[in-house]
Amino acid sequence: MDFLERHRDTLDGALQATRDRSYWSAYPESPSPKVYGETANDDGRAAFEAYLGTEFPLRQPGTEGTVATERSPYGIELGVGYPRPDVDVLLGAMCEALPAWRDAGPDARTGVCLEILDRLSKRSFELAYAVMHTTGQAFVMAFQAGGPHALDRGLEAVAYAYAEMTRQPASAYWEKPQGKRDPLRMEKTFHVVPRGVALVVACNTFPTWNSYPGLFASLVTGNPVVVKPHPRAVLPLAITVAVAREVLAEAGFDPNLVCLAAERPGEGLASVLATRPEVRIVDFTGSTAYGDWLEDNARQALVYTEKAGVNSVVIDSTDDLAGMVGNLAFSLSLYSGQMCTAPQNILVPREGITTDGGHQTFEAVAQRIAAAVDQLLGDDARAVEVLGGIVNDDVLERTERAGELGRRVLESRVVKHPQFPEATVRTPVLVALDAADEQAYGREHFGPIAFVIATDGTEHSLELLRRTAAERGAITASIYSTDEAVLEAAEEAALDAGVALSVNLTGGIFVNQSAAFSDFHATGANPAANACLTDAAFVAGRFRVVQSRRHLPVMA
Amino acid sequence: MDFLERHRDTLDGALQATRDRSYWSAYPESPSPKVYGETANDDGRAAFEAYLGTEFPLRQPGTEGTVATERSPYGIELGVGYPRPDVDVLLGAMCEALPAWRDAGPDARTGVCLEILDRLSKRSFELAYAVMHTTGQAFVMAFQAGGPHALDRGLEAVAYAYAEMTRQPASAYWEKPQGKRDPLRMEKTFHVVPRGVALVVACNTFPTWNSYPGLFASLVTGNPVVVKPHPRAVLPLAITVAVAREVLAEAGFDPNLVCLAAERPGEGLASVLATRPEVRIVDFTGSTAYGDWLEDNARQALVYTEKAGVNSVVIDSTDDLAGMVGNLAFSLSLYSGQMCTAPQNILVPREGITTDGGHQTFEAVAQRIAAAVDQLLGDDARAVEVLGGIVNDDVLERTERAGELGRRVLESRVVKHPQFPEATVRTPVLVALDAADEQAYGREHFGPIAFVIATDGTEHSLELLRRTAAERGAITASIYSTDEAVLEAAEEAALDAGVALSVNLTGGIFVNQSAAFSDFHATGANPAANACLTDAAFVAGRFRVVQSRRHLPVMA
Repeated sequence: MDFLERHRDTLDGALQATRDRSYWSAYPESPSPKVYGETANDDGRAAFEAYLGTEFPLRQPGTEGTVATERSPYGIELGVGYPRPDVDVLLGAMCEALPAWRDAGPDARTGVCLEILDRLSKRSFELAYAVMHTTGQAFVMAFQAGGPHALDRGLEAVAYAYAEMTRQPASAYWEKPQGKRDPLRMEKTFHVVPRGVALVVACNTFPTWNSYPGLFASLVTGNPVVVKPHPRAVLPLAITVAVAREVLAEAGFDPNLVCLAAERPGEGLASVLATRPEVRIVDFTGSTAYGDWLEDNARQALVYTEKAGVNSVVIDSTDDLAGMVGNLAFSLSLYSGQMCTAPQNILVPREGITTDGGHQTFEAVAQRIAAAVDQLLGDDARAVEVLGGIVNDDVLERTERAGELGRRVLESRVVKHPQFPEATVRTPVLVALDAADEQAYGREHFGPIAFVIATDGTEHSLELLRRTAAERGAITASIYSTDEAVLEAAEEAALDAGVALSVNLTGGIFVNQSAAFSDFHATGANPAANACLTDAAFVAGRFRVVQSRRHLPVMA
Repeated sequence: MDFLERHRDTLDGALQATRDRSYWSAYPESPSPKVYGETANDDGRAAFEAYLGTEFPLRQPGTEGTVATERSPYGIELGVGYPRPDVDVLLGAMCEALPAWRDAGPDARTGVCLEILDRLSKRSFELAYAVMHTTGQAFVMAFQAGGPHALDRGLEAVAYAYAEMTRQPASAYWEKPQGKRDPLRMEKTFHVVPRGVALVVACNTFPTWNSYPGLFASLVTGNPVVVKPHPRAVLPLAITVAVAREVLAEAGFDPNLVCLAAERPGEGLASVLATRPEVRIVDFTGSTAYGDWLEDNARQALVYTEKAGVNSVVIDSTDDLAGMVGNLAFSLSLYSGQMCTAPQNILVPREGITTDGGHQTFEAVAQRIAAAVDQLLGDDARAVEVLGGIVNDDVLERTERAGELGRRVLESRVVKHPQFPEATVRTPVLVALDAADEQAYGREHFGPIAFVIATDGTEHSLELLRRTAAERGAITASIYSTDEAVLEAAEEAALDAGVALSVNLTGGIFVNQSAAFSDFHATGANPAANACLTDAAFVAGRFRVVQSRRHLPVMA
């Protein structure tokens, strides 16, 4: 079965999209029965429910009992048992699987990865329920971000890696002229060689979206991949690992090329794995403290980290005040601000701004944003579909105490989930601060917490954007202005801060959305991440080219 | 002046060559008057001689006096004074130069780099004399490796970087369908943003060849470059820096984008620079100890190192005994084995080998190699053109004492240089060892020192190749066999060891030669180097893409 031929159009489309960076997607984002079939939703939910209270079907070497660690933010106890690995045995088996996978070459590996993505896509609803009940995302977001958008990011990594692996031919004929003498002639072979075992340390909030780029980039370049999920978000990755193993086995490869490493909370398995000599690549999404620890301690490995950041919105002026505050309200509310891309610091001149509705004072701007949030989330049934659930008690406590940091412009409200009465749902809290309060807004407050900050003017706002990004990192930045000179200054500030900038978002695009094949997610140019998902630098170091050259006799 | 247009054919040729990896070169390697002009040699020598005993003409900010540290291995005191920098002032000036260079974009930067390479090429003879009298290389090698081959490597880095920087367009239009509603529309801009100041720490033996890849890869991707030469090999890099500054200034850029940082021996300037927060990239060629130190301590920077290695030759059988020993003799002798690519461990079954001259005992093979070295170097005048001079007293002492490590098969002989009576020239020493003597052959003995090692057979030889490469690193490996199964086993061993393999070299190609655009130099897959010169991974991390996206109003 030639998986590469089967998915050639998908690969070609992805390769072209990484070059054009216009809109492209391989996996439909609409959870519509017209796209996925009339029974897809029911089948996916049934598949999810069938896992509950059972042992997840994964047969990995070196399994020492199981662990069950997940409870849905919507109140359901998952009770799924996952194999707990003996690290020596597991890594040993993975290393044994490496040579055949390496020697299969880029085409065979790319075909297998495309087939894995395709089969995962067919299980998008199953993934969606698994993501929803481990992250607290509302269903549509869990479907889109957890399924098709994550798959697009994985495909993007495969496409970049395929391009890099095939930049040089598999073999070449080399002939160097020697004047009147016979030329020198050689035959050369170029092998793509992986680094070793790759570790993916996944996060609670986006278990698939944030881990598929590293997982597929490492696997397609020849590295066996061990996935260490967050103890609260194992199921989406267990499904992923199971599908990968199924495809690998069908293609005649050792399924141990992809393994799951589940643990009890606090066991520290990521640290054990990340410092093993067999592990030569680590991909991590999560806290700055642990990302820094990995960078400092996993010295035998290439370490790719996405950590915390402080995302700023600079408001200078607008010709669409209603559009601006509506857009911001949605960005603050989406998945309760539990996104690395969500804005936190809204920087507004204390003298106010010019708008299509006339001059607006600082206070008026803050109140407008608060009112837009209220309007968006006024109806509980609608609100829960935007907010989803609070992912853990830390976020909840932080949200409840955020008002102490300054003057409350908008209180966080408890929302009753009509379907899941045990779900913890809160609307965003909005706090007014002064630019002088940098110790409050100068760090990340992960969750539905935002600050409206009074500055000396837009120049000052841009300076604060630069400084917080340089010191604490940032994944996104946003500017609202009707003045081209201000937009240019914002662009320069974004370059200095190494952060992606969104300009005048007033419609259906939000700063916290990042589109595969078009938007570079994170930059690696500030402390929020040491790499970008996904570009050539993200894949090129995961393999090496080892060549051989053979002397050819002089031609007759 | 559009430098990119002027050199477009060169860039296109280089881009194509990195894809084909067949023979290609942009800078002629023949030091013939027919190529470079009748007066080129005399002009180059005169330019070199004019530097002697003077202050090198470089006007850099923050200069605190000068240092003169070079004495030719051929016996000439160079006495050239170079500016000694105040690091704070120098790095400050380089950081100030960054934004305009960044904002000029990939095309402008690529044009400038191509012009620098072109002007350096026109000064190939001047560079050759500077390289010869700092490294001890014989003239033809100093010309080729110091000039055109180094320039080809620099161009190769520019080509890879250009390809990576232009993989995504400078801007894109993005339109996402929304069913029956109006599509979402955005305009996106993608900026290539450098990491910061790049440091190049150069070596004594190949000051240009080993530093041009890093220098040009960093510069073309937008990073200012500070070059810290070895105190014994400053002049070739001072000329390089001067030419770069001249072209930058002509093109309207700040010449401080490329600076020299000379020091007195033992001042530790590399360590000071490598750990400065402004320095975000380090390229290093030299000892394993210092390379490891940089990797451990320059944590704020991307660090690319090429360190020591132990290169093996596995002899299994041959159908061209004379060709084999002749080829090996040259590889051992070229530049007195002072190359990171020179073979050291010649692994031969203790039972002997099959050849076109019948069975040869282990002893016979060792004696044949020794005789071939004697024959190659029998005439002093010819010998010095192969051997060049011993670069420093450490190498001399190591060579003189190498015989103590085992049974001498060939003594090192003192060679009189007919032109430079003060030059230190030695022929290689060849020592017979047993596979059990791993403590002797299991580490690098830099210089004209090689071992013929008796093994249990070819399988054992390949095992030793694997082990020394994995433990100590290797840049090259070589196999001689008439048996395809053995060649396949050698290929597998090379993949496991992550080392480039040369097969059955018996003619005019030598294992220590690495051709730009075709051979990958080092792999990054064993301890001899953490990167390859030059591939996509070598360039892709030197810049980041920072995007901005602008909401476009719905079309009427």
